[in-house]
Amino acid sequence: MASTLAAGAENATQARILRHLRDGGPLSRVELAERIGTSRTTVATEVSRLAELGLVDDIGPGVSRGGRRATLVDLAGRLRFVGVDVGATSLTVGVTDGRLQVLVQREEELDVRRGAEHVLGRALELTRKLLAEQHLTRPAGLGIGLPGPVNFHAGTPVAPPIMPGWDGYPVREVLARELGCHVLVDNDVNAMALGELHAGVARSARDFLFVKIGTGIGCGIVVDGRLYRGVDGCAGDIGHIQAEESGPACACGNSGCLEAFFGGAALARDAAAAARSGRSPELAALAAASGAPLTAADVGTAARHGDQAALALIRDGGRRVGTVLAGLVSFFNPGLVVIGGGVSGLGHLLLAEIRGVVYRRSLPLATGNLPVVLTELGDAAGIVGAARLASDALYSPD
Amino acid sequence: MASTLAAGAENATQARILRHLRDGGPLSRVELAERIGTSRTTVATEVSRLAELGLVDDIGPGVSRGGRRATLVDLAGRLRFVGVDVGATSLTVGVTDGRLQVLVQREEELDVRRGAEHVLGRALELTRKLLAEQHLTRPAGLGIGLPGPVNFHAGTPVAPPIMPGWDGYPVREVLARELGCHVLVDNDVNAMALGELHAGVARSARDFLFVKIGTGIGCGIVVDGRLYRGVDGCAGDIGHIQAEESGPACACGNSGCLEAFFGGAALARDAAAAARSGRSPELAALAAASGAPLTAADVGTAARHGDQAALALIRDGGRRVGTVLAGLVSFFNPGLVVIGGGVSGLGHLLLAEIRGVVYRRSLPLATGNLPVVLTELGDAAGIVGAARLASDALYSPD
Repeated sequence: MASTLAAGAENATQARILRHLRDGGPLSRVELAERIGTSRTTVATEVSRLAELGLVDDIGPGVSRGGRRATLVDLAGRLRFVGVDVGATSLTVGVTDGRLQVLVQREEELDVRRGAEHVLGRALELTRKLLAEQHLTRPAGLGIGLPGPVNFHAGTPVAPPIMPGWDGYPVREVLARELGCHVLVDNDVNAMALGELHAGVARSARDFLFVKIGTGIGCGIVVDGRLYRGVDGCAGDIGHIQAEESGPACACGNSGCLEAFFGGAALARDAAAAARSGRSPELAALAAASGAPLTAADVGTAARHGDQAALALIRDGGRRVGTVLAGLVSFFNPGLVVIGGGVSGLGHLLLAEIRGVVYRRSLPLATGNLPVVLTELGDAAGIVGAARLASDALYSPD
Repeated sequence: MASTLAAGAENATQARILRHLRDGGPLSRVELAERIGTSRTTVATEVSRLAELGLVDDIGPGVSRGGRRATLVDLAGRLRFVGVDVGATSLTVGVTDGRLQVLVQREEELDVRRGAEHVLGRALELTRKLLAEQHLTRPAGLGIGLPGPVNFHAGTPVAPPIMPGWDGYPVREVLARELGCHVLVDNDVNAMALGELHAGVARSARDFLFVKIGTGIGCGIVVDGRLYRGVDGCAGDIGHIQAEESGPACACGNSGCLEAFFGGAALARDAAAAARSGRSPELAALAAASGAPLTAADVGTAARHGDQAALALIRDGGRRVGTVLAGLVSFFNPGLVVIGGGVSGLGHLLLAEIRGVVYRRSLPLATGNLPVVLTELGDAAGIVGAARLASDALYSPD
């Protein structure tokens, strides 16, 4: 099957050349040799081979460093990656260039519970449509993030709680067969963490946590610039950490879980209760106006209008997220914490509450230089990170 | 100064040879070439050089694999490392061979609060005495574990709460000058985790947690066979994670910290209260018999005699450790959790309580194959791990 896939790096030097061009290109052969720490001859040979493979281009003279102006090498202009972000209720597909800049993206509402065949069918249709607009049939690679635990090496979901019918479905195999390219499958939070690492607020971080607060609550863990997935691939599943000794029953069978307090469903439940009870005139008005169930976004709107019940929901949730995060900061001593996901749209009020608890409860040594910030990429983090997974695989020595 | 230090590996191949001999020697040149993935010629050249440096020896013929019996290479028989474990109230010094087997060790009671000069002076005296018994004056390297946060790269303690006068003291510099060898300084829990990795129950683990429950409570984090120290070197400081929303005031300024419930001092405090109140006849008898303050060991003794108050102390402590650990297991998805430190002497009752909470509260996917076990090495973990730090440095390419 390998022969039907788009070509990737054939050795470690080629892989390093491609990564340097992705993360800091275009570069001259001399600059590449310096950054990689190998001879100019070796670089010249490998660049020629990469050009034959269609992975790099000469793009003309760069800025002179005194003598003759060196010809710059860049990733091939026609190199395309696809990033797919499957959410609980949405599907986003983006096409990027070799440097993972998103050229075009499409999003549609789609319930992940409709099953693997339906959702992947829609993803394939959108992918082909976007590629056709770029006059391409086949990308160099595709990455896809799923809202549940994933066996990264097998490319399959593992007992995902909110994805009935997906357990063990051969996602990678099916997509690779359909598209004839490298396919990488990961948890959506891991993909978002990689997106922030590649192009977001974590660009210069080596060890950081990306916390997604959405329908579920999860955490991407980056150690030394690489995702840490844990022994069974489920590291970062922080939604079921106990936030308080007693609390609402959780779908997992325990009570007091962070997600049962402040996941998307919990927040919607508490917002509806506040609207019904008369504690929140703003939320009641929003529910009446839309006729649809209240959401996290409605809580944000009501809070911005000064609604006390909505403000209290955000403060309580932020405090509980902060309590759990404070423990993880003491344990992991990260250089940065990024907050993202749908509920992070609640913005700076939520952030202030989280920060307050983290800075008060974590070890001073661990928080002295610790920024806790909101995502810069927002929804794009998932597709950039998914594309990054694919590019990491293509730009690998094997 | 480098020239006054014992010689170490000069390049990556030599470093690999030394590590393979440490972890699986003795080996023939052919076996070394196979394991390292390089040519026999290269191995032969580098082994000769290592013999010149006094780091390896030829030790005669091995078992035949059909033809002529190959000569086995081993670490030099005279290679010695020193591991020093500084506890809150004790000092242990051990001398190991090149494979980090402890040849001789000495322990004495010593209050770390007597200050860096006094404690390091005692450590040097013990080290010199043990080396003299081995007819040596200089070890190949020394590692030392301290009971507080350490800047590993600088080799100095950083604001250690229970070590007055040690803050910023140049521990590495002083010991290296006195002994003329490589010196590595780390947190005691990190050293113990490395000890378990090298020679204990974590020998075959790549990603695991070592939890020390003693005077303080801390955690060593091993990722892919290497210590993860965090951005500021204070990763694993789990003693101040909130175990319950309200609880005893902690020295750190917060309340409800794990250590304030179940560190050595907290357990002694609760034991004394149980003895005074009449709730624990066993503890009262032990206090009267010894005339000294009650300790964790006394709680263990009383519990083994069936004392209900002592049993309750262990169960409550185990439950709180378990609650914190359950969160860390969900977050980190380790392959193994090892429990060590003084309070771990409470044994299987404590372990059962911790396991109960971890298996009930962590994500099933993360605990399906997760052993939670007691240390195998006990007190030796600290000196083996400290010696391992030194050997890792000596067996490094630079």
